[in-house]
Amino acid sequence: MKTTDTISKHTIDLEEKYRKIRNHSVHICAPLAIEDYVVQPIADVSPPKWHLGHTTWFFETFLLIPYFTGYQVFDPQYNYVFNSYYETVGARVIRTDRGNLSRPSVADIYQYRSYVDEQMQLFFDQKFHLSEPIATLLELGLNHEQQHQELLITDIKYILGHNPLFPPYLEDYIFPAAELKSMEMISFGEGIYEIGFEGTGFCFDNECGRHRVYLADFEIANRLVSNREYLEFIEAGGYLEFNHWHAEGWDWVKTSQRRSPLYWHQISNQWMHYTHAGLQELDLNAPVNHVNFYEATAYANWKGMRLPTEAEWEISADQLNWGERWEWTGSAYLPYPGFKKEAGAVGEYNGKFMVNQMVLRGSSEASSQGHSRKTYRNFFHAHHQWQFTGIRLAK
Amino acid sequence: MKTTDTISKHTIDLEEKYRKIRNHSVHICAPLAIEDYVVQPIADVSPPKWHLGHTTWFFETFLLIPYFTGYQVFDPQYNYVFNSYYETVGARVIRTDRGNLSRPSVADIYQYRSYVDEQMQLFFDQKFHLSEPIATLLELGLNHEQQHQELLITDIKYILGHNPLFPPYLEDYIFPAAELKSMEMISFGEGIYEIGFEGTGFCFDNECGRHRVYLADFEIANRLVSNREYLEFIEAGGYLEFNHWHAEGWDWVKTSQRRSPLYWHQISNQWMHYTHAGLQELDLNAPVNHVNFYEATAYANWKGMRLPTEAEWEISADQLNWGERWEWTGSAYLPYPGFKKEAGAVGEYNGKFMVNQMVLRGSSEASSQGHSRKTYRNFFHAHHQWQFTGIRLAK
Amino acid sequence: MKTTDTISKHTIDLEEKYRKIRNHSVHICAPLAIEDYVVQPIADVSPPKWHLGHTTWFFETFLLIPYFTGYQVFDPQYNYVFNSYYETVGARVIRTDRGNLSRPSVADIYQYRSYVDEQMQLFFDQKFHLSEPIATLLELGLNHEQQHQELLITDIKYILGHNPLFPPYLEDYIFPAAELKSMEMISFGEGIYEIGFEGTGFCFDNECGRHRVYLADFEIANRLVSNREYLEFIEAGGYLEFNHWHAEGWDWVKTSQRRSPLYWHQISNQWMHYTHAGLQELDLNAPVNHVNFYEATAYANWKGMRLPTEAEWEISADQLNWGERWEWTGSAYLPYPGFKKEAGAVGEYNGKFMVNQMVLRGSSEASSQGHSRKTYRNFFHAHHQWQFTGIRLAK
Amino acid sequence: MKTTDTISKHTIDLEEKYRKIRNHSVHICAPLAIEDYVVQPIADVSPPKWHLGHTTWFFETFLLIPYFTGYQVFDPQYNYVFNSYYETVGARVIRTDRGNLSRPSVADIYQYRSYVDEQMQLFFDQKFHLSEPIATLLELGLNHEQQHQELLITDIKYILGHNPLFPPYLEDYIFPAAELKSMEMISFGEGIYEIGFEGTGFCFDNECGRHRVYLADFEIANRLVSNREYLEFIEAGGYLEFNHWHAEGWDWVKTSQRRSPLYWHQISNQWMHYTHAGLQELDLNAPVNHVNFYEATAYANWKGMRLPTEAEWEISADQLNWGERWEWTGSAYLPYPGFKKEAGAVGEYNGKFMVNQMVLRGSSEASSQGHSRKTYRNFFHAHHQWQFTGIRLAK
Repeated sequence: MKTTDTISKHTIDLEEKYRKIRNHSVHICAPLAIEDYVVQPIADVSPPKWHLGHTTWFFETFLLIPYFTGYQVFDPQYNYVFNSYYETVGARVIRTDRGNLSRPSVADIYQYRSYVDEQMQLFFDQKFHLSEPIATLLELGLNHEQQHQELLITDIKYILGHNPLFPPYLEDYIFPAAELKSMEMISFGEGIYEIGFEGTGFCFDNECGRHRVYLADFEIANRLVSNREYLEFIEAGGYLEFNHWHAEGWDWVKTSQRRSPLYWHQISNQWMHYTHAGLQELDLNAPVNHVNFYEATAYANWKGMRLPTEAEWEISADQLNWGERWEWTGSAYLPYPGFKKEAGAVGEYNGKFMVNQMVLRGSSEASSQGHSRKTYRNFFHAHHQWQFTGIRLAK
Repeated sequence: MKTTDTISKHTIDLEEKYRKIRNHSVHICAPLAIEDYVVQPIADVSPPKWHLGHTTWFFETFLLIPYFTGYQVFDPQYNYVFNSYYETVGARVIRTDRGNLSRPSVADIYQYRSYVDEQMQLFFDQKFHLSEPIATLLELGLNHEQQHQELLITDIKYILGHNPLFPPYLEDYIFPAAELKSMEMISFGEGIYEIGFEGTGFCFDNECGRHRVYLADFEIANRLVSNREYLEFIEAGGYLEFNHWHAEGWDWVKTSQRRSPLYWHQISNQWMHYTHAGLQELDLNAPVNHVNFYEATAYANWKGMRLPTEAEWEISADQLNWGERWEWTGSAYLPYPGFKKEAGAVGEYNGKFMVNQMVLRGSSEASSQGHSRKTYRNFFHAHHQWQFTGIRLAK
Repeated sequence: MKTTDTISKHTIDLEEKYRKIRNHSVHICAPLAIEDYVVQPIADVSPPKWHLGHTTWFFETFLLIPYFTGYQVFDPQYNYVFNSYYETVGARVIRTDRGNLSRPSVADIYQYRSYVDEQMQLFFDQKFHLSEPIATLLELGLNHEQQHQELLITDIKYILGHNPLFPPYLEDYIFPAAELKSMEMISFGEGIYEIGFEGTGFCFDNECGRHRVYLADFEIANRLVSNREYLEFIEAGGYLEFNHWHAEGWDWVKTSQRRSPLYWHQISNQWMHYTHAGLQELDLNAPVNHVNFYEATAYANWKGMRLPTEAEWEISADQLNWGERWEWTGSAYLPYPGFKKEAGAVGEYNGKFMVNQMVLRGSSEASSQGHSRKTYRNFFHAHHQWQFTGIRLAK
Repeated sequence: MKTTDTISKHTIDLEEKYRKIRNHSVHICAPLAIEDYVVQPIADVSPPKWHLGHTTWFFETFLLIPYFTGYQVFDPQYNYVFNSYYETVGARVIRTDRGNLSRPSVADIYQYRSYVDEQMQLFFDQKFHLSEPIATLLELGLNHEQQHQELLITDIKYILGHNPLFPPYLEDYIFPAAELKSMEMISFGEGIYEIGFEGTGFCFDNECGRHRVYLADFEIANRLVSNREYLEFIEAGGYLEFNHWHAEGWDWVKTSQRRSPLYWHQISNQWMHYTHAGLQELDLNAPVNHVNFYEATAYANWKGMRLPTEAEWEISADQLNWGERWEWTGSAYLPYPGFKKEAGAVGEYNGKFMVNQMVLRGSSEASSQGHSRKTYRNFFHAHHQWQFTGIRLAK
């Protein structure tokens, strides 16, 4: 995690940021019934109460315990319950079991949040300024919480969207306006480019270091593929023709029996999709959502194009209108040249996932504001559909 | 389901019984946090809210809809959510998915209960007396609810007892006194005996018809095997010697890695067990609890004895002090001679389970009062441990 | 295993029997290609070469090693490879792995058979007469080999019958004549009857001891259900109506997607079945074959009848024309009153399987001659189809 | 598949090559017992007889049927049995079922080979020279057969090496001499390099097109990691420290319980490994073999180094002594810029596997002579151990 040497001067900004970001997680969960906090329909989707506890555990474990003298742990058993994948920090709950735990209760977890937030306030008050390693960990904790805010949104959608009653998350949820420009390809010439994070401010370790890449001539689409365009693929039998698909993608099609993106339902010949406002008619102009890497690639193959690489995406980002969907790239998630894993538990953050996943670039309507940047490297497995993921074409 | 011809005269009794039994289910759930109503840690354990909804659905589906003219269904989707195994009555939720459903909420389900109870009251008010088929269905519905009351208790125990925080169900839960008589064997001579339900009152279809059996001489223990006695089996290496076990039992031992009954934990050389009042020191005088058929048989083999057959149990029941644990018998769950499945959905109640399960006799401290009788035939699979199940020896 | 006290006088008879039975196993395998000896398409079906090795291992392990002084084991690793379920006798190969072992080769195993047969001859030559325990073990070994002879036939049928080329076992295989009598019900009156083995000669431990049972009036069919009759059940939608089935049977129908007995294929509107002579037109007059307990029960339910209990079958056996199919009974496989497991490895023979299986009575066209008797208790799991199993009705 | 325009003039060379390569497959199988041809211990390992049939099917399907007028198919059912993953060419046998098929017999398959080879000879005789597309397909078929020759060797090793008798493939198998140079790092400067196939001769589609890459300064080891060096990693607790591993690698360690490369066995404190000559003492100087990508990466992490990228490997290949092991690279298997899948079934050859696999470079002692080149891109899943795979360090 890189941070600038000026950060330590901005303790007050960080305090303010801490309050805002922590409150936002609570805000996201406000429309939920208590029962919605508890369930885990598939292993990838965590119960919302777990997200609330786990992000709090991060601040307790990495800030308060090591740096706030005299700190009393809220409940020593919570380390066991809310650790996720940090092998360094004690035993962890097997991931698929999270949905079996009715306790700690939602009220317990909100108390845990309040307690840790109060202690963090005392901690801020005590410090004239935050030293470099503390500020870095704090920034990391806040970015970590923002990542879980997006997961809260996607996991809540999965939980409610797979309930036979299709309950809305928010009846009056406001969707981003979807106006559809004509699709045009933007050209870039061959040459040596630089990618990776530079400058001041926070970034994740996987964005470093800045390095040169050679790119051949390429073209990249000015906008994402729309629902209307994706529907043409479905209607042309795209899910029935193995030739468009990776071998593993075709196995996925046959096993899952899917014939459309996640949340799409054809009801009496009308395409509907489950949204945060409940089941709605499909918005044909909106960018296609909830497709996995196999679907994104199959669509691109069918169009005679391909997905951009992450380097192509990054150097063209300033000319793209990004932020609607996480955009699958054709790049596998691998370390940048010179990547070094940091020591200790925070070093487990990114590096150990660098195999068998694909890079996604941009951000989505579910991302927390200010969380992303053009060097940001998101990553998911090729079969994952439950994130807000879309398709940008290249050739 | 056999009922006496006098039942239809006792509409008022049934009304009263309806109110008491329905209230008792709510009473059982009173100590729960809302989160506890939702989870399903294993397929056999249903979320408490599902039990509350399913028992209500029974009255709506089999009484109100067919017999109460003008009845308005509470929510037409609930049939899909709360049907269990009744194939006759529409699509059913796949059993293992119950724990993924955060909605209907607990509040919704209590509303559903209130609505159906009010409608049942109107229905009672309208009828001068209940006709025979209605009274029979009502009795069945109430016995069905009592069965789910026991499941509520065993499932809640499983949910809380498999939480790493070991939350108690009720801090001041009162346990039945456990005084330990010396074990003696009661002798019965060979001859023709009669078993099966007779007389007036309710019984399940699987208890009929009354029929003759020939029994050789046998002896049956006057009390159940205690925790102390079972502990001797453990300490003698009972779980390490395949010779005591059925082949499938031995596979279960190796796969499950169990070395003691469910809920037992050896903590710093002290045997503890999870109870409704939380984690407690093992009561050595109490009858052993939560053993499966494999364990019961292995224990009996080790003692050079056997489990009683269900016929032996029934004809000696009057001389036994039964009611503490469901008692595994050596009898497979099969139809009695002349057993006839009733027509329609209620006919699915028992007959279709008559393969690959073992009969248990008696009742347990978790059974609802007045629910059992000496002809009652309970049944579970040989590997099931989560019911309140114990061991009575015979030879 | 009960044997008469006269057996020890008949050493010469046993020698002769040994040669005949051992040769018959080789005779069964004569039509096989070497490749056919090796494969294991499902866990229940063992490779033929394994059967040949395992039956030989029995004589080596239980006769030659303990009783023939100076005996040199053929290969000490064979105990590991050819032990089946005898936990007493060292580690065993996990059952599903048998089909992965290309060695010992078929030639090695035939050498092993020759070696053990020669040693057995030397052993016979040395003894003037066989002592009681040795004669008993020898009888057991021969009956064990006959059981595996039937398994050889059923497993070979499975291996070749699940090959897309449908190779015949024997082009000129001769089928038993199938003449169809009219079905009549034979009546028996209520009363006390005796069942279980009595008299001289060999029997398995599970047939003992002879004991009394009380039976109500019953009727039993004079012949088995034919293919034509079973086809009527199929054509009446028998596999589509859950009401005929056990709950577990209905799960099996839905999971397996079966709509007919094993080996039936509907090819251009013609019902064919795979037989030892290859794919043939279905013989409508032959007794239905390769149905499991679920199918047998569903058929009987559809006819408004039931399967006989094993006691009913046994006391009527003399008036039945049995021997064409193993006949599913409605009795679970449980110990007879007074059943005692013998000490040591032979005690593992039967007792430990007495849970979750159903009794079959009679014998089949695949059974070795002279192997069965009317007290014989065969047993398989309710879902098994690959044995030669049929249906006899009762009421 | 690129081939030079001069190939069509060299029909005679191709004929000669065809005979040599086809004979070599038979030569590899010469030491096998018939039983060894049949089994499939895991899904990744195919029965040797299947490899022999499948490579023959390739020539029949892509050469003889479309281009040799009047060709009579050997057996129309073989397309079903021997097709592997070519979805374009009819139904295929589910991969895990190959080990269940005892027929076609080994003799049948050798007859099939002879028949196709004779027909190919007639085909060669008829043509004065082979046209470009035919020569290309022929080259592809021969390279395809060479790939299966390596699989034959690795699969035979797996089949015999997982048999409890550890039968050798060839008692007198001769191993490549293992002399161990001191390990030195060779340096390369940053800059633009070109990689990918160029020139004349055969290459696979995945090696095209030649393209520029930018590389930073790097160093690459002059030799592979030895068994001795890898043993140090084991003895230092390398398999017990999650910090060296990818998260998925650590899951693999815990699930598989592996603590050493495949085929290693610690027997009375002596490290042995199964080889083609049977179980032997571990050769400490030989390059480590049968490690998967997780193990290779964990080892490199432990050494504070990394695996080379495939571009680094290719541009340094002329200075490396490669050919002993397939060398895991840190590069995911993805299309080169401008990669185009060919039309028809041969287009399925490589492109559809370009997800979730890692690139391996070089070749191994199990590779057929002349099959590889420095632009060759092999690929396997990260968990695969059964190929002859080793580790080269970079930094």
